[in-house]
Amino acid sequence: MQKFGLFHEQWQPKVIAEMNDYQFKVVNLQGDFIWHDHKDTDETFIVIEGDLRIDFRNGAVHVRAGEMFVVPKGVEHKPYAQNEVKLLLIEPRGVLNTGMWAASGQRSRMSGSERLSSSNDVV
Amino acid sequence: MQKFGLFHEQWQPKVIAEMNDYQFKVVNLQGDFIWHDHKDTDETFIVIEGDLRIDFRNGAVHVRAGEMFVVPKGVEHKPYAQNEVKLLLIEPRGVLNTGMWAASGQRSRMSGSERLSSSNDVV
Repeated sequence: MQKFGLFHEQWQPKVIAEMNDYQFKVVNLQGDFIWHDHKDTDETFIVIEGDLRIDFRNGAVHVRAGEMFVVPKGVEHKPYAQNEVKLLLIEPRGVLNTGMWAASGQRSRMSGSERLSSSNDVV
Repeated sequence: MQKFGLFHEQWQPKVIAEMNDYQFKVVNLQGDFIWHDHKDTDETFIVIEGDLRIDFRNGAVHVRAGEMFVVPKGVEHKPYAQNEVKLLLIEPRGVLNTGMWAASGQRSRMSGSERLSSSNDVV
């Protein structure tokens, strides 16, 4: 996942590939996020580097490098990374502005122009 | 991707997770496959271990561990692995019996019962 060498910002997913109506996004996370859910879609986390904890209202999972986890639609969750984590996220196109990232209090809403988009890139 | 420790067969994808209507499958490949395409869907290859070559009618790509490639729908391709490659495949549910795996001359068609299926597993 060499694309991680191209940016260092945290909490700013970059679209690196698309499959049908889905997007693959790389992102660096560190710290605590807010509780949220996605009403219409599952969300896939594939951890490339580091340890991600995903809290649920009734527990938590630890997802480590080389592991993946699918959060089912409608399930409230809160990602947390004590140290920086590099992730590959898979979501349908369009989730960006209604889900996780736009909901952050600390981080500004991403505009389309901030995204690195390429439709069939090799990571 | 510890699930690879659970099986050693080649060319037999195992479903390890699902996201909406999509399935994540792990598979070991070695050798040459046949030319084929998927009329209705893109197909995503994420290489976990080894080097995969995907031949196209007008060239080839090499996809190495930690890299991914999306083959666009309708594009003829032929995977090739000189040495064993461990892959994560992402395809819509139902592609199994019409695409790559069923088309193999050497390998028998997979029946549903041969699949390891779990809907929200951690790899």
